[in-house]
Amino acid sequence: MSLDPAIAAKLKRNDAGLFSAVAQEKSTGDVLMVAWMDDEALARTLETRKGTYYSRSRQQYWVKGETSGHTQYVHEVRLDCDGDSVLLIVDQEGAACHTGTHTCFDTDVLLAAEQ
Amino acid sequence: MSLDPAIAAKLKRNDAGLFSAVAQEKSTGDVLMVAWMDDEALARTLETRKGTYYSRSRQQYWVKGETSGHTQYVHEVRLDCDGDSVLLIVDQEGAACHTGTHTCFDTDVLLAAEQ
Repeated sequence: MSLDPAIAAKLKRNDAGLFSAVAQEKSTGDVLMVAWMDDEALARTLETRKGTYYSRSRQQYWVKGETSGHTQYVHEVRLDCDGDSVLLIVDQEGAACHTGTHTCFDTDVLLAAEQ
Repeated sequence: MSLDPAIAAKLKRNDAGLFSAVAQEKSTGDVLMVAWMDDEALARTLETRKGTYYSRSRQQYWVKGETSGHTQYVHEVRLDCDGDSVLLIVDQEGAACHTGTHTCFDTDVLLAAEQ
């Protein structure tokens, strides 16, 4: 699958050819996770509407939920002003986090809201 | 300013010592922007509750809104499950994007929602 050249021309990738992807839940507005994409992962996401990322540690593509069943249906994809980050608006099936929590940001609060 | 060693121990930085930071507006839930931090930028953010990032292009710290007046008051900071991304829950003064739009994701829709 190849990415639309008009989109590819707008991307600003890091040295590894990657850019960040933020998944936000459509129904709640919750920021679910941050992962990485390359051109191919973005092309697959746009084509299939299934959240598809690139794993730096495993050096392979992964379709979110392919093994866990916790899939992401992608409603919208937006590119930011400097072209190095995409925002995915998704329906999340089950937990977004591999630890079982709803989002990957649920557990570790570094700074709490004032009382 | 130095970062709490207990927090520093949990961070997973890239080769440049950076990790990604997502700013989300408290009142609307809008994802405003994605930027970068290092330990010092995070320490300053936690201490001052002013969104403070590291600019890769300018190789310097920037307090969001310091020149534009479009400051971010930081209510909460959360670390994700694998320690390479933080989520900031903020009050955004004025436009978050340097282009003048409310968020950095307002302009470029790569995939539109189905009708």
